[in-house]
This record gives sequence, structure tokens and C-alpha cells, in this order.
Amino acid sequence: MTPPAAVTDTPALYVPRLAVIGCGLIGGSFALALRAAGLVGEVVGHSASPRTLEKALALGAIDRAAESSAAAVAGAHLVLVSVPVSATESVLRAVRDGLEPEAMLMDVGSTKRDVVDAARRVLRDRLRNFVPAHPIAGKEMAGISHADARLFQGRPAILTPIAQTDPGLLRGAEAIWSALGAQVRQMSPENHDATFAAVSHLPHLLAFAYFNAMLGQPAGQDYLPMGGSGFRDFTRIAASDPQVWRDILSTNREEVLKQCLRFRHALDAFEHVIRGGNLEALEGLIRVASEGRSHWQPLGGKTAGR
Amino acid sequence: MTPPAAVTDTPALYVPRLAVIGCGLIGGSFALALRAAGLVGEVVGHSASPRTLEKALALGAIDRAAESSAAAVAGAHLVLVSVPVSATESVLRAVRDGLEPEAMLMDVGSTKRDVVDAARRVLRDRLRNFVPAHPIAGKEMAGISHADARLFQGRPAILTPIAQTDPGLLRGAEAIWSALGAQVRQMSPENHDATFAAVSHLPHLLAFAYFNAMLGQPAGQDYLPMGGSGFRDFTRIAASDPQVWRDILSTNREEVLKQCLRFRHALDAFEHVIRGGNLEALEGLIRVASEGRSHWQPLGGKTAGR
Repeated sequence: MTPPAAVTDTPALYVPRLAVIGCGLIGGSFALALRAAGLVGEVVGHSASPRTLEKALALGAIDRAAESSAAAVAGAHLVLVSVPVSATESVLRAVRDGLEPEAMLMDVGSTKRDVVDAARRVLRDRLRNFVPAHPIAGKEMAGISHADARLFQGRPAILTPIAQTDPGLLRGAEAIWSALGAQVRQMSPENHDATFAAVSHLPHLLAFAYFNAMLGQPAGQDYLPMGGSGFRDFTRIAASDPQVWRDILSTNREEVLKQCLRFRHALDAFEHVIRGGNLEALEGLIRVASEGRSHWQPLGGKTAGR
Repeated sequence: MTPPAAVTDTPALYVPRLAVIGCGLIGGSFALALRAAGLVGEVVGHSASPRTLEKALALGAIDRAAESSAAAVAGAHLVLVSVPVSATESVLRAVRDGLEPEAMLMDVGSTKRDVVDAARRVLRDRLRNFVPAHPIAGKEMAGISHADARLFQGRPAILTPIAQTDPGLLRGAEAIWSALGAQVRQMSPENHDATFAAVSHLPHLLAFAYFNAMLGQPAGQDYLPMGGSGFRDFTRIAASDPQVWRDILSTNREEVLKQCLRFRHALDAFEHVIRGGNLEALEGLIRVASEGRSHWQPLGGKTAGR
């Protein structure tokens, strides 16, 4: 990616004014990335917490702090809504009337059906401006202080447009995420939620439950320091933000519970052969997982390796 | 650690001849580490696979290949048994009669009760020579080609002596693991198996079952490439060696199933609040895990970090 060439080739990509509602890890990283690519003029930010806004200013993620979401969107060509999923509907309602007619309104929520439903409820004639998006680039460390201009490089960015989404704005969104180095994919909101229930939400749920099982037993505190590198990696996502994950697991509950049931059946199969002492069947079950994981390749390849 | 000084300070630490039965990741790394520390004269190796023995010779992990375990132990001051747990009993039987009177016989199996039971069955008057050990230093990549002289540095090495273990040999084993940079701890075989069922065996079981649940569903192949860094780390141990883990999960089945039950109860609690839409309780459960994991510190600190 050579930013100046990209700007020259597709002048429509340049964003004279970006409004970021919710200056956390994703919002801050998006602003920094767009700036690093030379694709943005002014960045206006709003966050519920004044302290977050101060940090975002200090880190150069935003140029100016707005007093409200409504104030932030005035004159903005691109509005990025990067708040916890449960806060999305109220933000959409707050920005709707102040939105410029041709502005792109994009969210980055980790679940998409509920966000699209919220948009349908509150955006009305502005629904055409809305491009639902989900960059797959979280860290378990939330917050603006972990913002990183390279966060999206080589990582998937999923767009889940609906029938009303303006095709020009959709192409613009694709171009922007591509310019930030992301691998853009389109999915329906439903397929998105099923996919990420499987590859992200369920692993988080299992890691949380596993860690609680450790902490909840009498000898847990003696056991924990004995964890090695396998334990460290397996539990890394258990440190994720409680509010963010409360929202994800509850808004996508149907798909998460479906995946959890599939997992329970797979675990049943293991317990059955372990209990029965069927070594050959046990080795066979492990081999499926071991070979599957050894051949696994993520989209974009960035997370490849051990 | 300054090897020459260590040798000077504790001359008894020097091992004129080491026999390694099973030249895989752990056996090979132990030989390389002892050599790097200047603590070994000759290394004789035996493995069931001629190809493994060739690789071990080529990598300089062993100086000489022996045709059998019995042949390998003749004249050896330290015999390291680093074979899959299920093969330990037959190796102990094979080496018993050829063992030098003062030799240290040490295994490195990931479960300890079954190994101690096997030793009691077959070692008879040589039980005093036996020091059961477990260095916590696996990688999910098994085999001599991944052997690494620094594998044990900063990592726990658990010794699980029994009543018959010679106190001098036990001190010797402590000194050797310490000289290789390991953090030595003593535990009973029972406590060892309970501890590692919790922090290692259960996570492996869950990762295997999770991966199989992914592979076993119609859309699994579409879902898998969408996994991000959380997925990558959570599933890393699912790539572990099927034979090694068949042995571990089956020999420690009682403790593993106990831990699995605790995990299921923790998962039940999550599913209950997710299904009931109790956001406050869900956030509370996640917070326990999140704070617990954020404060987690491994023994020795080597695996600290994300």
C-alpha cells in the first residue's frame, strides 16, 4: 500500500472530516490508521468519558473533542460508531438528524444482526447512509491507550450491507478498509453472526468458564501458577473486557448457545472414550483436532504460525 | 548460570555418561541443555525409531546410538526415560537389570501416579534409583527436530519423589534441573496429577473438543479462516501430538474428568445467565475471569505477558 498513490488513484477515498463516536481501541486505531495513510483531514471525536477524550487528543488520534455525538457528526464525511454494541442504538438515534446527506455512517460492532435491527428502528430515511462493518482486529486489551495505526493490516474487515445500503457508500467503505491494509469480505448479518459465534464468541465463553472453574475450586490458587505456555495462550482471551463481552454474548446469544451445544457434544464424545478407556478412539478424536489445527490458515495469513 | 562455576562448586553434578531413552523433544533438549551447561561427558541415546536416532546424532544431541534401552544404560550415571507415558513401564523393565548401582533413573512423564505405580511394579530393589520428574516445558511441536537447549530455562521442573527415592539422588536431580535454569518444585505424585489435570490436561481436552466441534459442522470450513488472533492462541494446543495426549488423558482420566465436571458447572452458570438475559450477572461472571486472568503470574515468570 502506497498511500499517496492510493489517494491519487481514487480521490473519493480522502475523508476531509472524520467523526469518531467512541474513542476506544478500534475507534482510535481507525483514526490513527486513516491519518497514517494520509487519507483524512480533521478528526473530531466524542466519548462518554472525558478522560478517554483527553487521552485520544494527547495521542493525536483526534484533533478536536466534541461535546456530544450530535455535535461530532456535523460536517463529517465519515462517521465511525465504535461503542459497545449495547450503546449503538442510542448513538445512531443521537446522530441521525445531524448527519450530512452523503455521509458514510459506519459501525464496527462485533455482532451485526442486532446492530442492523437497531439501525432499521432508528435511522429511517438515513438507512441508506449506514454501512455495518466489523474489523477482526481486537486485542484483549481494550482502550485508547492500546490504539495502533497498524491494527487492521492483514486482518479481515467484514462488511454486512443490507438492501438499503447505498452502493456507492459500500464501495467507499471497501476502499477505505482496503487502504488500511485489511482483507475486505462481504457477508449477510446472519452469516456474520453465525461465523463469529463459532470462531470468536464461543472460544471467549469457554475461556471465561474455564478460568472461573479454576478460580472456583479450593486448590485453584495453588494450581494457577503452575500453568505453562499452553495455559497462557489458551486463557489469554479470558482477560477480555467484561462489558464488551457481556454485550457480544447476549446480543448474539442464539448463535452462541447453538455453538455451545455443538461443543458440548464434541466434549461428550471425548469424555465417553476417556471414561471407557478406548485408547484407539481417543487417539482418533485427538488426531482430527491435531491435524485440523496444524493445517489451519487464517484469512490474510497475518495470524499464521503457532 | 555460569556452568564452569557450577561444576566447580558442585562437582557431583557432572554426569560422565548420560543415557537418553526416547530422543524426542524433551530427551533431546535435556541432552543439549546438559551439554550446553558443560555438565555431561558422553551421551548415549536409544529410540524405537532409527530415523529419530539418526536425527539426534546429526543434531549433536547424542554422541552414540545404542541398539536397545538395556544397552544404552550400561555404564550410565544418569538415565533419562523420555518416552510416551504408556511406554514407560516396558522401558523401566528393560533397563532395570543393566542399571549401575548408583545411577539416577529419571523419567519426565506428564502424569506421575501411573509412572510411580509402574516403577513400583517393575523396579523392585532399584526403586531407590528412581526420581520421577516432570519439566513443564512442552511445545505443541513434538520431536527431536524441535529440541532446544534452553527449553527448561525459567520453567518449572516438578519432582515427585516417593518414600523409596534415595535422598542423595533426589538432591542430585534438584541440582541438575536448577543448573538447566528450571524452577524446581517438589509435589506428591497425586498432587502433581491433580494440578496438571487442572492447568494443562483440561485445556488440551477443551481445545481438542472445540476444534472437533468446528470441523464437525457443515459450515465449519467456511468459518475457520475467519478465526483471528484469539482463535489462534486458544486453539494452539489443539495441534498437540495425538499419541502423547491419548496417554496423558487416559492415564490421568480420574483427575481430568473431575476437572471437566467443574468446567461444565462453570459453563452451565454462563449459559444460564446468557439464556435468561441477565446482563448484570453475565458481566459479573466475565469480570471474575477477566480480573483473574489479568493478575495471573506463572511460576518463574517466563510465560508472563499477554
